[in-house]
Amino acid sequence: MSPDPFTITSRDGDARAGVLGLPHGTVATPAFVPLASTGTVKSLHASEVSALGFEMVLGNTFHLFVRPGAERLREQGGLHEFMGWRQPIITDSGGFQVFSMGHGNVAAEIKRTGSRRQGQGVLLSIDERGARFRSYLDGAELFMGPEESMEMQAAIGSDIALAFDECTPFHVTREYTQSSTERTHRWLERCVGWHREHGEAGRLLYGIVQGGVYEDMRGESARFVAEAGVDGIAIGGSLGQEKEQMRDVVGWALGESPNTLPRHLLGIGDIDDLVAGVRAGIDTFDCATPTRLGRHGTALVPDPGGRWRLDLTAPASAGVKGPIEEGCPCPACREHTRSYLHYLLRARELTGVRLVTLHNLTFVERLMTGMRTAIGAGELEVYGERVLAGGAP
Amino acid sequence: MSPDPFTITSRDGDARAGVLGLPHGTVATPAFVPLASTGTVKSLHASEVSALGFEMVLGNTFHLFVRPGAERLREQGGLHEFMGWRQPIITDSGGFQVFSMGHGNVAAEIKRTGSRRQGQGVLLSIDERGARFRSYLDGAELFMGPEESMEMQAAIGSDIALAFDECTPFHVTREYTQSSTERTHRWLERCVGWHREHGEAGRLLYGIVQGGVYEDMRGESARFVAEAGVDGIAIGGSLGQEKEQMRDVVGWALGESPNTLPRHLLGIGDIDDLVAGVRAGIDTFDCATPTRLGRHGTALVPDPGGRWRLDLTAPASAGVKGPIEEGCPCPACREHTRSYLHYLLRARELTGVRLVTLHNLTFVERLMTGMRTAIGAGELEVYGERVLAGGAP
Repeated sequence: MSPDPFTITSRDGDARAGVLGLPHGTVATPAFVPLASTGTVKSLHASEVSALGFEMVLGNTFHLFVRPGAERLREQGGLHEFMGWRQPIITDSGGFQVFSMGHGNVAAEIKRTGSRRQGQGVLLSIDERGARFRSYLDGAELFMGPEESMEMQAAIGSDIALAFDECTPFHVTREYTQSSTERTHRWLERCVGWHREHGEAGRLLYGIVQGGVYEDMRGESARFVAEAGVDGIAIGGSLGQEKEQMRDVVGWALGESPNTLPRHLLGIGDIDDLVAGVRAGIDTFDCATPTRLGRHGTALVPDPGGRWRLDLTAPASAGVKGPIEEGCPCPACREHTRSYLHYLLRARELTGVRLVTLHNLTFVERLMTGMRTAIGAGELEVYGERVLAGGAP
Repeated sequence: MSPDPFTITSRDGDARAGVLGLPHGTVATPAFVPLASTGTVKSLHASEVSALGFEMVLGNTFHLFVRPGAERLREQGGLHEFMGWRQPIITDSGGFQVFSMGHGNVAAEIKRTGSRRQGQGVLLSIDERGARFRSYLDGAELFMGPEESMEMQAAIGSDIALAFDECTPFHVTREYTQSSTERTHRWLERCVGWHREHGEAGRLLYGIVQGGVYEDMRGESARFVAEAGVDGIAIGGSLGQEKEQMRDVVGWALGESPNTLPRHLLGIGDIDDLVAGVRAGIDTFDCATPTRLGRHGTALVPDPGGRWRLDLTAPASAGVKGPIEEGCPCPACREHTRSYLHYLLRARELTGVRLVTLHNLTFVERLMTGMRTAIGAGELEVYGERVLAGGAP
C-alpha cells in the first residue's frame, strides 16, 4: 500500500503545513531540499544531511545521466542505495541543464544570484523529440527527451520525478516563450503517459509550470499542468529579474493551481524568498545557494538589512573570537570562531568549506522548522516578520 | 601541579605502553599523531578528530609562523583555542621546512613515498644564527633560528615542543652530515636554555637525534640529546632509502637513548613501519601518509602483500557493492560502497576525500589501539605478526 502522497495538516493564510508520503519515507512541509545534484550534498555524506534534519534531497537527472549513468545506478540499486541516502529523493528533469547549453548563460539571468543549477556542454540540436548534446565529460553525443528523462529518473529511483521541460530564460521574446511553453506541455503529456505505463507505485510525477513573466501564460500553463493528471506542481523557468516580479509570477502560477496538490518552487532559496514562498503556499524548495555560498565562505546570518550574508573571507572576520551566530547549534558555531573560519577559508582548507556548509544548511533548516511550527500555531505572519526584521530563525 | 610527563605502564620486549601527562590532557602510548600542520587535520574539524580516538595532533611551526603568524595565535589564545582542539598538541620545530627550501626536494629522498612534511619557499641564507627565507605566501623575508622556533612554539602553546634542527637529507656527504648534526646540537643547547628560562610549566621539550645513516653519528647524537636535559627524544632526518636501513637507524638512535624518556619518530606512518617502530620502543609517530593518501583516493586496507593500499580511483572499484573493509567502524565503510567512493573521487567531490580520510585515520587508530592492548597483554609479537600477515588491525 502506498502512503497518502500529500496531507495538509494545517493552514495559515495561503500557507500550509503538511506531510508528503513517499516510497522512501515522509517529508514534513514546508521543506527545503538540499541539492545532491551529483549524488552528494557537497562535502557531506548522506547520514550527515539526515542528521541536520532534512528529509529529502534533490538529485540532478542531467548530471547523473552523464555520470555515473543509468546502467551504473541500476546495477547499484538506484541513487538511494548508491549514495547511502534511504529517505526521499526528488529529481530535476534535466531540462534546465540541457537548455542552458543552448541559451548561453540562461542561469545567470533566471536568478539575480547566478546559476540556479550547474550545467556545461554543447547543445547540438533541439526538436520535438528532445535535445542532442555533447557530454561535458568526454564529448560523447547524448540524447535526452521526455521519455529518456523519465527513464533516467526511474533508474535513479526518485520518489518525485519532474516532467521534462524547456526552462525558458528571461531574455527571449514572448513568442518564443509561448511556443516553448506549448512544447513543454506536449512533453508533459508524454511524461504523464510514460509514468502511467511504467511508473512504480507510490512514485510521484510533478509537472512544471512555465510561461515566463507573462501572467496569462503562467495561468494557462498552471491550468494545463493541473489538468494533465500530475501528482504535484513545480514552478520553473524565468521568475523575472526582481524579487517583486518573482512573487507576482509565483502568485499567477499558484492562483491557477489546485489547493490540494503539493507545490515545489525550483531553484529558489534566499531567506526572504523562502518566507514569501511559504506565505504564498509553496510546500518545497530546492536551491544551490546555501551550499554554494558555504563553499565560497559566505555564511547565512540574521540580518535586518535583508541580505543574510556574512563574507567570512573579508578582513573584518580575521580577529573575531565569537562564532558566526550566537546560539546556532551547528558545529561551526558551537566549536569555532569567526577568526578560525576566516583563516581556514583564506588557506583554502576543506574544513572551512565544510563548516560553513554545515552552518548554512542548519540556518535554513531552522527557518523551515520555525515556519512549520508557526503555521501549526497560526503565527506564520508574526514569525516571518520577525525573521525578515533580522531575528534568528 | 604538572602531571607526571611520562609513565610506562607495561613493557613487552623493547615495546612499551604508557601515558604522556601534558598540560592539555593525557595521551595513551604508543600513539599515532595526525597532522594538523596548518591548524586543521585536512577536511575534519577538531571534535571529529577527537571522536576518532586521537588524543594529540601535530601543528607545524613553520606553516603556522607564515600563516596565521604568532600575533594572531597569541590574540586568539594559542592554537588549542584557535582550532578548537583542547587536547595535547606537539609541534614540529620548523627546521624541516626551512631546510627543504635549500636542499631542493629533500623530502622525496628522506622517505621512499614522497614528501614527509610539506614546505615551499626560497631559502636565502643559513648560518649559525638560523635561516633567512622568503614566505611562500607573499614573498616577505622571514627569519627562523632556535629562539624564534621556540618563541613560535610558545605562541602556539604546544604541549610538546621540538628543538630546532637541520633535517639532513640522504644525498649529502658524511662530512656535511657531521657538521650539520653538530650545529643541530648547538641549536639544541640554545633551545634547552630558552625553554628553561621561558618555557611554561608542564610543557615538554624534545631534542631531535640527527646523524644521517651513520651508526656512530646516530649513537653520538642520541647520547648528546639525552644529556642535554630534554624531556623526550625525537628521531629525525634521513632514515635511509630502504625500510631495513630505516630500522637500523632507529635502532642505533634508540640504543643510546634512555629507556625512561618518551620517544617520537618523525614522519613515519606506514603500517609495517608503525608495527616495527612500536616493537623497537617508539612511543609516538606523526605522518602525513594516512591523510594524504585519503586525499588522493587511496584507502588503507588489510593486505598480506604488505602495501596496505587500495586505490579507489582505479576501475576495479567502479562497480563494487562492498565497503572498503568489512567490519571497519568508520562511516565510509558502515554507510557506503566502494562503487560510490570511486564515483565521488573520480568526480573530485570533497565528500569522497573526506570519507577516505576518515577511513584511513580509523584504520591507523585501530592499529594503535590494538598494539596498546597487545603490549598490556604481552602479546605484541603475535598481534604484530597477524597484522603484517594481512589481518585486520
